[in-house]
Amino acid sequence: MMQGEIITTGTELITGRVGDFNARYAARRLHEAGIEIQSITMLGDRAPLLKTVLTQALKRSQFILITGGLGPTDDDITVAAAAQALNLRLFEDEALLARIRRCLGERGLPWEDRYARLAVIPEGATVLDPGGSACGFSLRHQEAWLFFLPGVPREMRVLFDSFVLPFLVGFAGGGKYMRQRTLRLFGISETQLQETVNKLADWQQEVCVGLYPNFPENHLTLTMRGPEPQALEDNLDRLTAALAREVGEVLLGPETFSLEEMVGQKLKEQGLTLAVAESCTGGLICHRLTNVPGSSDYFLGGVVTYSNQAKMDLLRVPGATLEQEGAVSGATARAMALGVKEIFHTPLGLAVTGIAGPSGGSATKPVGTVHLGLATPAGVATRHCHFHGSREEIKALTAQTALDWLRRELK
Amino acid sequence: MMQGEIITTGTELITGRVGDFNARYAARRLHEAGIEIQSITMLGDRAPLLKTVLTQALKRSQFILITGGLGPTDDDITVAAAAQALNLRLFEDEALLARIRRCLGERGLPWEDRYARLAVIPEGATVLDPGGSACGFSLRHQEAWLFFLPGVPREMRVLFDSFVLPFLVGFAGGGKYMRQRTLRLFGISETQLQETVNKLADWQQEVCVGLYPNFPENHLTLTMRGPEPQALEDNLDRLTAALAREVGEVLLGPETFSLEEMVGQKLKEQGLTLAVAESCTGGLICHRLTNVPGSSDYFLGGVVTYSNQAKMDLLRVPGATLEQEGAVSGATARAMALGVKEIFHTPLGLAVTGIAGPSGGSATKPVGTVHLGLATPAGVATRHCHFHGSREEIKALTAQTALDWLRRELK
Repeated sequence: MMQGEIITTGTELITGRVGDFNARYAARRLHEAGIEIQSITMLGDRAPLLKTVLTQALKRSQFILITGGLGPTDDDITVAAAAQALNLRLFEDEALLARIRRCLGERGLPWEDRYARLAVIPEGATVLDPGGSACGFSLRHQEAWLFFLPGVPREMRVLFDSFVLPFLVGFAGGGKYMRQRTLRLFGISETQLQETVNKLADWQQEVCVGLYPNFPENHLTLTMRGPEPQALEDNLDRLTAALAREVGEVLLGPETFSLEEMVGQKLKEQGLTLAVAESCTGGLICHRLTNVPGSSDYFLGGVVTYSNQAKMDLLRVPGATLEQEGAVSGATARAMALGVKEIFHTPLGLAVTGIAGPSGGSATKPVGTVHLGLATPAGVATRHCHFHGSREEIKALTAQTALDWLRRELK
Repeated sequence: MMQGEIITTGTELITGRVGDFNARYAARRLHEAGIEIQSITMLGDRAPLLKTVLTQALKRSQFILITGGLGPTDDDITVAAAAQALNLRLFEDEALLARIRRCLGERGLPWEDRYARLAVIPEGATVLDPGGSACGFSLRHQEAWLFFLPGVPREMRVLFDSFVLPFLVGFAGGGKYMRQRTLRLFGISETQLQETVNKLADWQQEVCVGLYPNFPENHLTLTMRGPEPQALEDNLDRLTAALAREVGEVLLGPETFSLEEMVGQKLKEQGLTLAVAESCTGGLICHRLTNVPGSSDYFLGGVVTYSNQAKMDLLRVPGATLEQEGAVSGATARAMALGVKEIFHTPLGLAVTGIAGPSGGSATKPVGTVHLGLATPAGVATRHCHFHGSREEIKALTAQTALDWLRRELK
């Protein structure tokens, strides 16, 4: 069994200022792929200890992932420490230097001498270039593979997913193929999901299942190994279908598509356009919808009405409705959905109104009370929910529930 | 300077299933108290590596905190591994055994033989008994102090706070105090900030500076130690003022306030209300503003106009402006800011229009082109920016720039 470990550097880690998201991300992805690591070591920005830890790691691990300390500033000492530990000379990689100059130019940034540091790597290193973001490099040292990745999580993940994971999976595979699928669920608790998985595992011995809460969703990773890639895919399809039979529509789909992408895809397929009226979510639903490239094809816009006056003026919610039923009511959600559909001339209007807290609640309408409205050419429907959590959690749960409702309606 | 480190054990850590909350908690508490650690090592439930890591730690650290693996099951191997690494005999502590029997009795739980393991500790160990929850123990070994705590976070924290931290603070203190401040900056690159810090460090030898990119902001942590707490605060004030003189308004403030909170505070102080018109940010500015509790006091709402028709219908942007200048133009941003101010009856109107990409760019208006408009009672101003990055990064940079502009105007 191949042994590996992770070393992350950054004073912010050993002062507890941030969690080590890079190590956790890599550990989880490797575990999902059936590759175990034996340790994670976090270090401050101090060269002597990094050299020591690397030297020890080389004695016991076949692969070592090192993140952080590749930048242009004085506390970026990873490359120098690695060269010392491995007894390698450093050199300036001309192609890498040219790439850095080109990137700076494309972004209209001036050259500074300190950037030359970014092109200095140990002899024998292979540059890992994802195109468009920071590079890392890999090194073969005796029996071990070393991977050096940047500490910025976004940059680290791109390189880890495109270079490190595929390489290690192939290396560890031993002629076996690995297929993996992450399924996203919303509207089922972690405990309920675990019970469902336990039932499924009985008849599906060869699948390795990981369950990861990912607020407000729950994610399930299925990993299978075997000599036949197509058989693995078929088995994963079967397992996914079995899960869908158990849990129904709470199964959103594979990890590659976000809920807003799924909604967008359906709107595009059905040639429909959408407008959104938000109160308690304050723009979050529009923000999520517009995170999808090309969303202007089906999303025409929205209105955030944080006052009664705006609900009346912009969304034509009757003053009497607000007075008699209140701003947080089914009647107001209904009027908002119809209003936003009308002013944007769209077939679909989605609306939410609620109390995100922490103040503003009452005995009859406590914090977390939310009403949703969905207007379609067939009519208008409303839903009533009660959520628990912080202000941001209630906003997130409301936005997710509204988008999920739309997804189900578009089936 | 006393050197210390943390070792945590648990397979859930090195498979990425959970974050290492114990290590982060202890690291943060120690850092706040002015005690630095040099590494955090997470291990699975494997005896050989724990023994190796402990042996290495003893060579370089004056204190070592070990959490996890003290329970009654087979994978709880911390005590045995520690005894091997330290070459100590294990013995059954009779007082501890009696305490365990008493606790079980009080909880109405039956005795099981495996519980006897919980009373086995190395010779020379001192039991850390918080009363009412699980015990740990400490050990003096040559020049080092070792602390063994349970892995359950609640139990670990009680013991850490009542025994470990007070002991280390007294041991390490030498009568010195520590004060720390985190400063947030926007509109200065990491490199520029590093250079500015280098200049400041010349005249301020005793401050320890940490620079942490936190997209789209950069954060700077200043730590000072000395015998006089008030003198430390005064010095931090002086350093903050010196930095402000160097960088001007790009210094946002201390970490405790987000940009949207700062904007909200100023609006409240000045008795002003705000409405926002968004195109390329798609609701993100409204979302950020409404993340602040009580934002309904000054934020009346916003409009997300993702189509030209909506810009004309809702924001009264003249069709001629859209036709002649385009939707992404200073003239359109100006008309949007005035329009949203008018329809919400607010003294302030903030507007953004741009191309978030990845498609939709042209030679004259490439992806990342953004125009901002700010309408106040004094008139309307526009700004033109060009951002680089992914769709979500351009959205984030645009929202941050717009909110930051508002912050500066409200000075």
